[in-house]
Amino acid sequence: MYINELIDRAMKSKNPNLVFKNANIVNVFTHEIIIGDVAVHNGIIVGIGNYIGKTNIDLSGKYIAPGLIDSHVHIESSMLSPGEFAKAIVPRGTTTIISDPHEIANVCGLDGIEYILEATEKLPLNTYVMLPSCVPATNFENSGAVLKAKDLERYINHPRVLGLGEMMNYPGVIYKDKDVIDKLNMAYVNKKMIDGHAPRISGDGLNAYVLSGVSTDHECCEKEEMLEKLRLGMYILIREGSATKDLKNLISGVNSYNYQRVMLCTDDKHPEDLLKEGHIDHNVRLAIQNGIDPITAIQMATINAANCYKLDKLGAIAPGYRADIIVFDNLNDFNIEEVYKDGKLVGKEKIPLFNTENMNFDKVLKTVHLSEISKKDIEINIETENNKEKVNVIQLKPHSLITKKVIRAVSIKDKKFQYNKDDILKLAVIERHKDTGNIGIGLVENFKLKNGAIATTISHDSHNVIVVGDNDEDMINAVNKVIKMDGGIAISSSNEILESLSLSIGGLMSHKNIEYVDSKFSRLVDIAYNTLNVSKDIDPFLTLAFLALPVIPDIKLTDQGLFDVENFRFINIKS
Amino acid sequence: MYINELIDRAMKSKNPNLVFKNANIVNVFTHEIIIGDVAVHNGIIVGIGNYIGKTNIDLSGKYIAPGLIDSHVHIESSMLSPGEFAKAIVPRGTTTIISDPHEIANVCGLDGIEYILEATEKLPLNTYVMLPSCVPATNFENSGAVLKAKDLERYINHPRVLGLGEMMNYPGVIYKDKDVIDKLNMAYVNKKMIDGHAPRISGDGLNAYVLSGVSTDHECCEKEEMLEKLRLGMYILIREGSATKDLKNLISGVNSYNYQRVMLCTDDKHPEDLLKEGHIDHNVRLAIQNGIDPITAIQMATINAANCYKLDKLGAIAPGYRADIIVFDNLNDFNIEEVYKDGKLVGKEKIPLFNTENMNFDKVLKTVHLSEISKKDIEINIETENNKEKVNVIQLKPHSLITKKVIRAVSIKDKKFQYNKDDILKLAVIERHKDTGNIGIGLVENFKLKNGAIATTISHDSHNVIVVGDNDEDMINAVNKVIKMDGGIAISSSNEILESLSLSIGGLMSHKNIEYVDSKFSRLVDIAYNTLNVSKDIDPFLTLAFLALPVIPDIKLTDQGLFDVENFRFINIKS
Repeated sequence: MYINELIDRAMKSKNPNLVFKNANIVNVFTHEIIIGDVAVHNGIIVGIGNYIGKTNIDLSGKYIAPGLIDSHVHIESSMLSPGEFAKAIVPRGTTTIISDPHEIANVCGLDGIEYILEATEKLPLNTYVMLPSCVPATNFENSGAVLKAKDLERYINHPRVLGLGEMMNYPGVIYKDKDVIDKLNMAYVNKKMIDGHAPRISGDGLNAYVLSGVSTDHECCEKEEMLEKLRLGMYILIREGSATKDLKNLISGVNSYNYQRVMLCTDDKHPEDLLKEGHIDHNVRLAIQNGIDPITAIQMATINAANCYKLDKLGAIAPGYRADIIVFDNLNDFNIEEVYKDGKLVGKEKIPLFNTENMNFDKVLKTVHLSEISKKDIEINIETENNKEKVNVIQLKPHSLITKKVIRAVSIKDKKFQYNKDDILKLAVIERHKDTGNIGIGLVENFKLKNGAIATTISHDSHNVIVVGDNDEDMINAVNKVIKMDGGIAISSSNEILESLSLSIGGLMSHKNIEYVDSKFSRLVDIAYNTLNVSKDIDPFLTLAFLALPVIPDIKLTDQGLFDVENFRFINIKS
Repeated sequence: MYINELIDRAMKSKNPNLVFKNANIVNVFTHEIIIGDVAVHNGIIVGIGNYIGKTNIDLSGKYIAPGLIDSHVHIESSMLSPGEFAKAIVPRGTTTIISDPHEIANVCGLDGIEYILEATEKLPLNTYVMLPSCVPATNFENSGAVLKAKDLERYINHPRVLGLGEMMNYPGVIYKDKDVIDKLNMAYVNKKMIDGHAPRISGDGLNAYVLSGVSTDHECCEKEEMLEKLRLGMYILIREGSATKDLKNLISGVNSYNYQRVMLCTDDKHPEDLLKEGHIDHNVRLAIQNGIDPITAIQMATINAANCYKLDKLGAIAPGYRADIIVFDNLNDFNIEEVYKDGKLVGKEKIPLFNTENMNFDKVLKTVHLSEISKKDIEINIETENNKEKVNVIQLKPHSLITKKVIRAVSIKDKKFQYNKDDILKLAVIERHKDTGNIGIGLVENFKLKNGAIATTISHDSHNVIVVGDNDEDMINAVNKVIKMDGGIAISSSNEILESLSLSIGGLMSHKNIEYVDSKFSRLVDIAYNTLNVSKDIDPFLTLAFLALPVIPDIKLTDQGLFDVENFRFINIKS
């Protein structure tokens, strides 16, 4: 029996493979630092105390803690394949993630989920999956897949699937939408978790939402919101990622009585930030800088997440636990110097010490099912006899994903919209999953782009091709480049592609490493701002990516047309 | 869908059945008191806030908390059937127990486990079961059953079975006894818990024990012992029962960082103490009296146990949780006035408000498989030509289960032991499960009984008939009474039965209520001390019950003979 070999090592009748000697061990059960040896055999911690191993690593003066856990992350936001993502985050100390493959599932359906599961199978990163609960996000757009309860159920008992992913459809819960209830029930029947997503929900609605089985939330923005959710029994994931940063607002609500139900997550983190800041290690440092005791911060990033998600034998340094261990300098700086996964050194000085296989998983490749488009595909036809007409325009707000519906008079010639110099740009969303020929066309202001176009397959949540431009030629050129790359991002100016990034995995992720993706993407950002003069009040790619999501107010564009989010209906471009 | 009805009540589109109005609600997630209403529908808590129900109970000034959890208890120690046990403890606030049917399983094997599961099925008491891991306790006695891993596996996935019960065989773990490892592995493979039992185990041995999968311990006597176990990741159950009282020794080791891994249990509690003190409510009060914050004490008796044992939707007052709720007067006195189980009032002012069916479960009845015994069955034959001979005697120590082997010279006539006036009593253990005819006979001093005999089927762990006396006639009379009752306790003096208590369920439990059992048992104790003059330094029945357990030093008696625990071998009565 396998356990016998381990017992022999704990009892010292045989030597364990590896012993960390004289370490300051962060004890996440008792909130203490214990000085001692940690014996590891076959990837399992077998004893704490005084041990001698076949290999002995003296850690006098150093600290060790359990490997860190990101309790909610979309790998796709890194634009990296799971393997390259692991290379980026494992050396930063993350040894476990709870991922929600919401983006790739919107493109590839169950194949997308299967891809994430297969691509993470052999990584030195425990990758758990929450099944995306909202594919598609709404009925007002065409995504690559529609996932019902019975579809998701095929994966619910996969050993690394923990439950149902963030239930964004809050109205669907409280109004008892059958599809939503079926999914909640499917998770319940299979005794699995349900992650929440309940920004600003409170009172009766929050009671109903929690009652429905949702047990976590990572969308709190304010301390009082967090406390209300904690009181109702929700676990709180404090999010600090690239797009959304909640830690400073929330951390003062964490106290010694409630912190064991609080953990840390990134949700979405971009390559540049991963390289500059790190991953969950950054969130731990930020918590410490904001007054949280270092051991408490480490507990939030380890055992608390393991307890919430019932991850057996993860998140602590104790007998029987997996030897996922980080070595760091001191409790205040928390600089992670070495990372061990299952007892093997996999990262040192932020450098990964492992390779990943290049996995070819055909079902997530060649996902842009579109022929090249031409000028007439993106014409805006407005039935009028005038040369000016009032139209509905999407107005961007600075540093916000919320838009405003405004009415503007635009020039018309031969019943067609005419570009002008007044910052009214053309926006198009081109359905790319089923080749329906659907193209939604609208107008946007405050993007402030000049002499060019930006096209991308990253457009939440359905990830159709979205393009913005001030002339049709560059729009067509950029879109056709994206089509040619089988997905990705392209910038065209004067009918020339200035830069592009191929994202051939579902149009979302690259096979290349983080340094390559970051340098390409940084150039794209630089060109957008400095060559195309995109407004500094917005993020060119993030803003564009969310212009197609018809759940964020006030007005959005899907492949089916202009959508008035407030009134929950499509509207004409002509006002 | 069932959940829809509940959501309607949370959202106030329909009225819930029951609302507790204006209560001081103990919030076990945030360690706060929140004033508000608790809405309950179909036994489930649907919302906290402002609600109006079909029935409304004003609790202004009162406190409510989740129903209490006894995290480790042997129902059998109460000498009550599960139904009568529930009637005794539910009105005291206990709505959930984690029981280990170790005693009845030693008598009836799997039938004993099945009995506990069936008899608790419909009670207003959530009864979870840990499968007894050590039946029989040793190979040096005949019990009613031998339970191997494959036997236990038949019940491991029962919805109310949480795992493997207290692994008392610590040497079996560290020396990798195949049967023990098989049981541990069976629990591991089925993803179930393993309860521990590791008095005074520390260091490498504790590492090995924890490594083997054991995750709880309820045997700590000292604070340092508790802290060492907490550091290794064990959950600690602070025990305060009838026989063993650890709370005062341990409670000062509990702090705001580690208390969430600490809970409360009784282990064994006798009828008299249940009536006088209560159940887990007593342990909560005792914790408060010893300096623990009342909310912390309640958390230990509710959510901490639910978290440890992964009891979903138990142990808190929050949406989706079962409406197991106690109403009490104030935080310091913690007098429980009402108990609700699944939203129904089941106890008021310590009185049960429910009935239980009398379950006839034949397989745990008529378990004394013995014919009447006679004088020659309990003769002690000593091969000698002298009228005095040196013999091994079990010496009792005051207030302890540990005995000492002493050598005494006793009178012999016709090669037979002769009673004298020197407090050397005869002790016999009569195998009663398989009618093997095995009778172990020994001698005991410091019991100090005069002119009579006490016989009982409660004799740990195999529960053979054990009898002690100063003359053969009373011993035979008492034993034959126990046989006639199909199990129980009897006292004989001058060949007359002075008092008896029938324990027809496995020879361990009565069908009668707690008041009856307590009054009978109290009389037995009174007669033992005051008529038979048993030493006040011992507990007549507890001491007798443990004289047959060959794992407690130094010398014990099983049905197979006199056992030297130190040297782990049988010895002759003749020294």
